[in-house]
Amino acid sequence: MKINKNYLNLQPSYLFSTIAKKVAEYKEKNPQANIIRLGIGDVTLPLAKTVVAALKNASEEMGHAETFKGYGEEQGYEFLRTAIQKHYEKKNVSLDTDEIFISDGAKSDLGNILDIFDKDNTVLIPDPVYPVYVDTNIMAGRTIKFMNANMQNSFLPMPEEGMTADIIYLCSPNNPTGAVYTKEQLKTWVDFALKQNAVILFDSAYEAFITDEKLPTSIYQIDGAKKCAIEFCSFSKTAGFTGTRCGYTVVPKTLVFEDTQLNKFWLRRQTTKFNGVPYIIQRGAEAVFSDEGWKEIKENIQYYLDNAKIITDAMKKANINYVGGENSPYIWLECPNGMKSWEFFEFLLEKANVVGTPGAGFGENGEGFFRLTAFGNRENIIEAVDRILKCLK
Amino acid sequence: MKINKNYLNLQPSYLFSTIAKKVAEYKEKNPQANIIRLGIGDVTLPLAKTVVAALKNASEEMGHAETFKGYGEEQGYEFLRTAIQKHYEKKNVSLDTDEIFISDGAKSDLGNILDIFDKDNTVLIPDPVYPVYVDTNIMAGRTIKFMNANMQNSFLPMPEEGMTADIIYLCSPNNPTGAVYTKEQLKTWVDFALKQNAVILFDSAYEAFITDEKLPTSIYQIDGAKKCAIEFCSFSKTAGFTGTRCGYTVVPKTLVFEDTQLNKFWLRRQTTKFNGVPYIIQRGAEAVFSDEGWKEIKENIQYYLDNAKIITDAMKKANINYVGGENSPYIWLECPNGMKSWEFFEFLLEKANVVGTPGAGFGENGEGFFRLTAFGNRENIIEAVDRILKCLK
Repeated sequence: MKINKNYLNLQPSYLFSTIAKKVAEYKEKNPQANIIRLGIGDVTLPLAKTVVAALKNASEEMGHAETFKGYGEEQGYEFLRTAIQKHYEKKNVSLDTDEIFISDGAKSDLGNILDIFDKDNTVLIPDPVYPVYVDTNIMAGRTIKFMNANMQNSFLPMPEEGMTADIIYLCSPNNPTGAVYTKEQLKTWVDFALKQNAVILFDSAYEAFITDEKLPTSIYQIDGAKKCAIEFCSFSKTAGFTGTRCGYTVVPKTLVFEDTQLNKFWLRRQTTKFNGVPYIIQRGAEAVFSDEGWKEIKENIQYYLDNAKIITDAMKKANINYVGGENSPYIWLECPNGMKSWEFFEFLLEKANVVGTPGAGFGENGEGFFRLTAFGNRENIIEAVDRILKCLK
Repeated sequence: MKINKNYLNLQPSYLFSTIAKKVAEYKEKNPQANIIRLGIGDVTLPLAKTVVAALKNASEEMGHAETFKGYGEEQGYEFLRTAIQKHYEKKNVSLDTDEIFISDGAKSDLGNILDIFDKDNTVLIPDPVYPVYVDTNIMAGRTIKFMNANMQNSFLPMPEEGMTADIIYLCSPNNPTGAVYTKEQLKTWVDFALKQNAVILFDSAYEAFITDEKLPTSIYQIDGAKKCAIEFCSFSKTAGFTGTRCGYTVVPKTLVFEDTQLNKFWLRRQTTKFNGVPYIIQRGAEAVFSDEGWKEIKENIQYYLDNAKIITDAMKKANINYVGGENSPYIWLECPNGMKSWEFFEFLLEKANVVGTPGAGFGENGEGFFRLTAFGNRENIIEAVDRILKCLK
């Protein structure tokens, strides 16, 4: 048996394990240190009450023959796809429920979608970037081109003269930078994709953090996007589902390449290699969209956004350049005093006992930058920011 | 963008939709008919009480900051991998917990595992077969060779003179035939794979139905298997998790091809394209292995096995050839009076108002055969069998 040798081209993914190791070493030498972690992009607030009630209720249903559920449709229960359809209606986006596929999270679908594309496609990926976009394409042996995201373009790269691509990754609000594309910018991307006959893979996992009504929360708010874009979204950050696992992917039926509806290919992929998300979890996700559930999760998101504001206020005070932190849980900052990413990591760990994520871990353009996340609890954020300001004085 | 044209080589999967259509048509013409379905391989008994309690308890945990769980390890929580490790110990199979990967079901992993293999591998698949083995390899553009399962070999094909393969699918107890390999037969397969430098993908989703202690419930009970086999198992049929979604895949660290540990490749695949099974579901799966949980699920399995006995007793009475129905929930029978699969389907539907699955839907060798499943409720099984015997008189 011959292995898939493309895997040998993967870079080891040491970012978070290296962080963990360095923190552990520091902690061993300084057992008294009260370390605050603003590094990993994981939520901390518990699930909304309405969601928990729905999960428990569905669990009880599974214990009785009359309400027990066996195999469901691979693409998800109609009740949840209808709830998501209505969520899109509020964004003035009209979708059929068979254009919506329930997934166990955006990460799975962002990886698995590549199944339906030929190996021989050129992929355009921003740098810095969520590593999954890169690694999944290396695994398939595709040619990857990077586009530079940097301070000059506010970390929002745009199509450039002579640029060509078959598959384009966009993430807005962005991970790791927190930058958000405007409607006009996305329109430029959609026009570019249509001209190139390219498909846009649009990662909108952080859309619920957008409070500025002028900013797009779905690529389908842009004319023409239904002919070139697949959208991936998730309950992970919207409703704290990082450990509960549910997301959704939109594949419009108007997406046609080489006379083929991508919707049909994706349906075939999912019915062949996936058996759907647990009924219990889908009921929990449905509850997110109930009036009470939505109110609760909006409060949670506001809590994180208020955390972000505390961090960005401190950045301003310290005269540090940054993007994000508005309409996003991520703050992407330029390391002060010309420090490199890992240098600033060590500096913050030692001087402030605060852990963040070195930007260099997200790509070449991340060098000299640093990511802080707003997912911590309020007291820790205030304390961390206080310590950072003190050590930068 | 160029699509993956291998998808165009897939046969439309019309088996269960055709059955549904034919039943609906019959029902429209005969609205009074009381139709009994012994067709689809889905369970009907509710989840065990212990499992439901664990699901509800874990749901409650997710609602409190102190017990809330965000991202877990992609390969699953240690508590569940340890429980599975102990389950294997009872089979005299010793595994490390990092050889066990928690999945959302055997179907997903059986499809996704192919990611780590080169396209240029020849695949050996029994016919008749679970269609997923075939379709996932067609999607990847691999060369498929079929091996004949038929009455002559009791639907348990064995290596033959001149046979070659890189990837070998074995499923025991088998879907759709219910046939079970002996240890001696599996030993022959393991020796063949080692000689060929092939990998065996062993689907043991129905292992919990084996009551005959002489039969193997894991391929790792066979010497040498840890050097050539990956095992896929699931809680779907073991504990009625078809709608609850949890399974596990074993990739021994001793599996080395082209100097590469497959365990490392699979870990990389999963950490890149998967984010783990919901915490709540993993707690439910853990409860399956508790003393009380195991007792409950064993009772459920015995219920289905007793159903199977009722069906096989009827087959004997009617002088119908069959395999399975012992150590398996499936009964695979030769259609009486030389009928073809779909002919017998129509015959049973019209004369007995019983729905089964035409064997022809599982491959060429399935023609002239028919699958009945023991997953229904007792009263229906008794009534169905009674009607079948009457119409065959």
